[in-house]
Amino acid sequence: MSPKITVELLRQLRQAMRNGKCIAEPIQAYIIPSGDAHQSEYIAPCDCRREFICGFNGSAGTAIVTEQHAALWTDGRYFLQASQQMDNNWTLMKMGLKETLSQEDWLISVLPENSKVGVDPWIIAADQWKNMSKALSSAGHSLVAVQANLIDAIWEDRPARPNTKLIALGLKYTGLTWQDKITALRGKMAERKISWFVVTALDEIAWLFNLRGSDIEYNPVFFAYAIIGISSIKLFVDSKRLVDPAIRQHLELDSPSKPDLTVQCFPYESVFSELNAVCAALAPKDKMWICDKASCALTQVIPKAHRAAIPYTPLCLAKAVKNPTEIQGMKMAHIKDAVALCELFAWLEKEIPKGTVTEISAADKAEELRSQQKDFVGLSFPTISSVGPNGAIIHYRPLPETNRTLSLNEVYLIDSGAQYRDGTTDVTRTVHFGTPSDYEKECFTYVLKGHIAVSAAVFPNGTKGHLLDSFARAALWDSGLDYLHGTGHGVGCFLNVHEGPCGISYKTFADEPLEAGMIVSDEPGYYEDGSFGIRLENVVLVVPAKTKYNYRNRGSLTFEPLTLVPIQLKMINTDLLTQKERDWVNDYHRKCLETIGAEMERQGRKEALDWLIRETQPIV
Amino acid sequence: MSPKITVELLRQLRQAMRNGKCIAEPIQAYIIPSGDAHQSEYIAPCDCRREFICGFNGSAGTAIVTEQHAALWTDGRYFLQASQQMDNNWTLMKMGLKETLSQEDWLISVLPENSKVGVDPWIIAADQWKNMSKALSSAGHSLVAVQANLIDAIWEDRPARPNTKLIALGLKYTGLTWQDKITALRGKMAERKISWFVVTALDEIAWLFNLRGSDIEYNPVFFAYAIIGISSIKLFVDSKRLVDPAIRQHLELDSPSKPDLTVQCFPYESVFSELNAVCAALAPKDKMWICDKASCALTQVIPKAHRAAIPYTPLCLAKAVKNPTEIQGMKMAHIKDAVALCELFAWLEKEIPKGTVTEISAADKAEELRSQQKDFVGLSFPTISSVGPNGAIIHYRPLPETNRTLSLNEVYLIDSGAQYRDGTTDVTRTVHFGTPSDYEKECFTYVLKGHIAVSAAVFPNGTKGHLLDSFARAALWDSGLDYLHGTGHGVGCFLNVHEGPCGISYKTFADEPLEAGMIVSDEPGYYEDGSFGIRLENVVLVVPAKTKYNYRNRGSLTFEPLTLVPIQLKMINTDLLTQKERDWVNDYHRKCLETIGAEMERQGRKEALDWLIRETQPIV
Repeated sequence: MSPKITVELLRQLRQAMRNGKCIAEPIQAYIIPSGDAHQSEYIAPCDCRREFICGFNGSAGTAIVTEQHAALWTDGRYFLQASQQMDNNWTLMKMGLKETLSQEDWLISVLPENSKVGVDPWIIAADQWKNMSKALSSAGHSLVAVQANLIDAIWEDRPARPNTKLIALGLKYTGLTWQDKITALRGKMAERKISWFVVTALDEIAWLFNLRGSDIEYNPVFFAYAIIGISSIKLFVDSKRLVDPAIRQHLELDSPSKPDLTVQCFPYESVFSELNAVCAALAPKDKMWICDKASCALTQVIPKAHRAAIPYTPLCLAKAVKNPTEIQGMKMAHIKDAVALCELFAWLEKEIPKGTVTEISAADKAEELRSQQKDFVGLSFPTISSVGPNGAIIHYRPLPETNRTLSLNEVYLIDSGAQYRDGTTDVTRTVHFGTPSDYEKECFTYVLKGHIAVSAAVFPNGTKGHLLDSFARAALWDSGLDYLHGTGHGVGCFLNVHEGPCGISYKTFADEPLEAGMIVSDEPGYYEDGSFGIRLENVVLVVPAKTKYNYRNRGSLTFEPLTLVPIQLKMINTDLLTQKERDWVNDYHRKCLETIGAEMERQGRKEALDWLIRETQPIV
Repeated sequence: MSPKITVELLRQLRQAMRNGKCIAEPIQAYIIPSGDAHQSEYIAPCDCRREFICGFNGSAGTAIVTEQHAALWTDGRYFLQASQQMDNNWTLMKMGLKETLSQEDWLISVLPENSKVGVDPWIIAADQWKNMSKALSSAGHSLVAVQANLIDAIWEDRPARPNTKLIALGLKYTGLTWQDKITALRGKMAERKISWFVVTALDEIAWLFNLRGSDIEYNPVFFAYAIIGISSIKLFVDSKRLVDPAIRQHLELDSPSKPDLTVQCFPYESVFSELNAVCAALAPKDKMWICDKASCALTQVIPKAHRAAIPYTPLCLAKAVKNPTEIQGMKMAHIKDAVALCELFAWLEKEIPKGTVTEISAADKAEELRSQQKDFVGLSFPTISSVGPNGAIIHYRPLPETNRTLSLNEVYLIDSGAQYRDGTTDVTRTVHFGTPSDYEKECFTYVLKGHIAVSAAVFPNGTKGHLLDSFARAALWDSGLDYLHGTGHGVGCFLNVHEGPCGISYKTFADEPLEAGMIVSDEPGYYEDGSFGIRLENVVLVVPAKTKYNYRNRGSLTFEPLTLVPIQLKMINTDLLTQKERDWVNDYHRKCLETIGAEMERQGRKEALDWLIRETQPIV
């Protein structure tokens, strides 16, 4: 891929930084975070400001432009990609390496004395604003809110904000009405003496109201805010979306059942003024919840005395613990998804020898097969379909200029998933269609051992996911190997494929304890730059574990795999597995055969079934 | 043990809280932390204010007294002990349990509006002050510094501050002169553009100046402060201690070799005024290091603009990474210590059947045997010598009223260690002199598996110790068991038996990465209230590990046990061990036999050698 040429854009941006038309007084640096006003991970095209200015389109990264410099911070997943997408006006700041300065330290090192650093307060989180502001102040600089976004000012053909059709999800999918969810939320608010809660995360709003949209690719959300009071509900969303009678009925807009369950609708843009009005009418003891990851702009509307900033919201936690209906839906979605993926592998085996399958065509085929499954909505993230050296680019996405042909000689890694109305999937398999080398098998087997160590782990109730991260690495570490990403993330139910507040990572100490009903991924890997990548990912459900003893009646938990796609036996060096690990693989494959086999029969997918039977033979 | 009766003391304290003689204005609550002005873990009798007021004498805990309430916070190690030592005027607040309020939340829940909460600013750390003050302010209360300590005001026979003789350690023990240490420290200060460093931790001062004292039982430290500048050295210590010609010569007080290595001595108490004087003379850009765990009183002397608060000091890190001389000394100390402990076990086997050995006499015997070893100075902490149910009290210390007799029917746990001039030891063994039950063996074996999993772990350079904690628990977790303490702590070299900044704990996320040369303990356990306790502790040295591969040239680390005392085979259910674990035990015992056996022969300790030979037979 060739880098984006940014000379002219940087010139224009620097002019805007000095220009009285855009800002009250000149700034010496401008920060361009990657998020939108809801701190979404995936964002709509109109919000891709960081990509617009520097060319790098990965999911995480922050750009900073000063009069003399332009630098981009991103993490280990994206070092290679960012270096290829940016021209030499940009310096790549590799986060996580010891020698890399933080954004604050870098700014302090390059800025003249008493500089002003600008940022759009809508797209910086309140906690980030606080840290950045403190660091800059301590060095004599200041962080200033620039209300008009300077990138928007120079972005001529900036796309419009999407405004897609909403769909209402019934009880069959959600298990709980939105009214019940509001009532439960108000219970939590009452417990903590909270009178208002400002909801800014798009997936929390979608989950709370049992609504979905398609404003952001891969994430079935829609642009909205909500302010929930003890007896009122304010929803901020474009009024055109509320014309649909199905939506009006779902929200009971025309005939509310109870006064305190009446949804008041406001335009999306009026959240600022309406929040101001709510704050003006607060009683002295009223407290208002807002997530500390909400935008600085909205957070600062709430007077400090009334503001109760929380690291994650009660909706985030309630959404993470799936109810029985959601669990059933996630299971169904994973069964359908496995049928499609097994079909893909059976098809690839036949087609690859012809030399016509590429990373892109394989990804397209995967999407086509998934789209044949019931309640398919779309993909849950861009498919990572990668051959040989491309597999070492952790968040690779095949493009025409990087597209490799699948062959009998190279490892193939496919990390893909879909949105179904009943659930969200995310699965990675690494396979070889010819004969893998001993070294590839050895590395694969260490990754498999790590995957099993997490999946089969038994741990006390109340354990945080980060305490399990090292289990996934122990076999790799023993041989001097490792991988530079976390082991797992929360997964939404027909919602975002990445969600908090739980996960499995050495980096996350603010994660919430795992509870039965939570759903996370288990995805250790190993990557050898320039040669191959290995990752093995299942989505797993936290379930109670039966143990011989029960210390202090705490109870124990373990994981149940929801993903049921065979692990390629050809890639395993079975000599490196313990008997327990071999049993795990055999049990897992038996379950794949039983569950997915039955669904394939039901769907009459004979070829895939033959493939599944062959791929789930027990290790002896 | 019977609880301390505190009715009258609490009455007096509450009077002092209201009384204009002691304080400027009445306070509604008074916090009594457990530390001294140096935030020491072990403290001198004159500093045992928290024990004085509530009776609980464990190493960690904070008491808070209000007009109506008196409450003590401590952790899982001390729940039982605290409940036994405190009368019913006190509420035990069990830290780590979900339902237990934090000190801040508790204060907010019990205090009348606009309350003042007092604390002695010398014995609360600056970071704790900040957190507490913030939490109280947000609820309309305030934290106030009470200069005259209110406990001292009601403590009639409070002991005097100790002032023991100093000893100077030569290069043979330290490996580096104090001048070299100062020079290295100044190098770190220059790197970070720091002009002054206020040293408040007693072990850091002792390590820096190659001096030891015995002001605090078990910890070979002395009351002092130091302020190190780029070209000056200020030591605050009682002048009587500097009369000794050996000390004068060691510090070159009468004939300094260089002006910038001249030690200026000041009285201990003058640190406040002298720091004030240094601060008054600071240039605008001068920065001063102080640990954020230093006292609030001293920290607040430094104007904010000049203060660079650090979570741990460069001395703390330099001290943690032992040099070759220190490592050699630690090895020697552990060999001598193992000889004494093996002798103890051989003696116990003979004596226990007579029915005359108690927890106290066994502990005394252990001390006697250790004291016969070369360069013995004293114990490194109070010996935990515990039989049967007493073993479940994690930091048990036998007292006449709790003293049990060792028998052939109960598990015996002894956690003990000593200070030698060449090193500090800390070792726990759990043994049975009759026939352990299957359940005791099963639990012991899980603990052993956890111990081995940490000891044999291989991990990348740069890994923090907390990432290894779960390895120690996996086998217990599998059976629904666990233990409520961390797995390991840093160990000083002829210094404090607990030191930072490294460790192995699920609780510690601020730990520094493990490096070759660091020394930590590896001590998983299992405790069954009312019946028995199991712990298995070795002190281990971080060493480079040879691995098959070397990902990104990071290099790998592992542990080498310094403790070389047999693990009782009788307690092991070998069926539960893997072949790798059996090999580990056999290798370990071979090393015990070779190394400790040779020393026993040299010392002519025949009976102990016979015991050692028998106890190190390989598992087949």
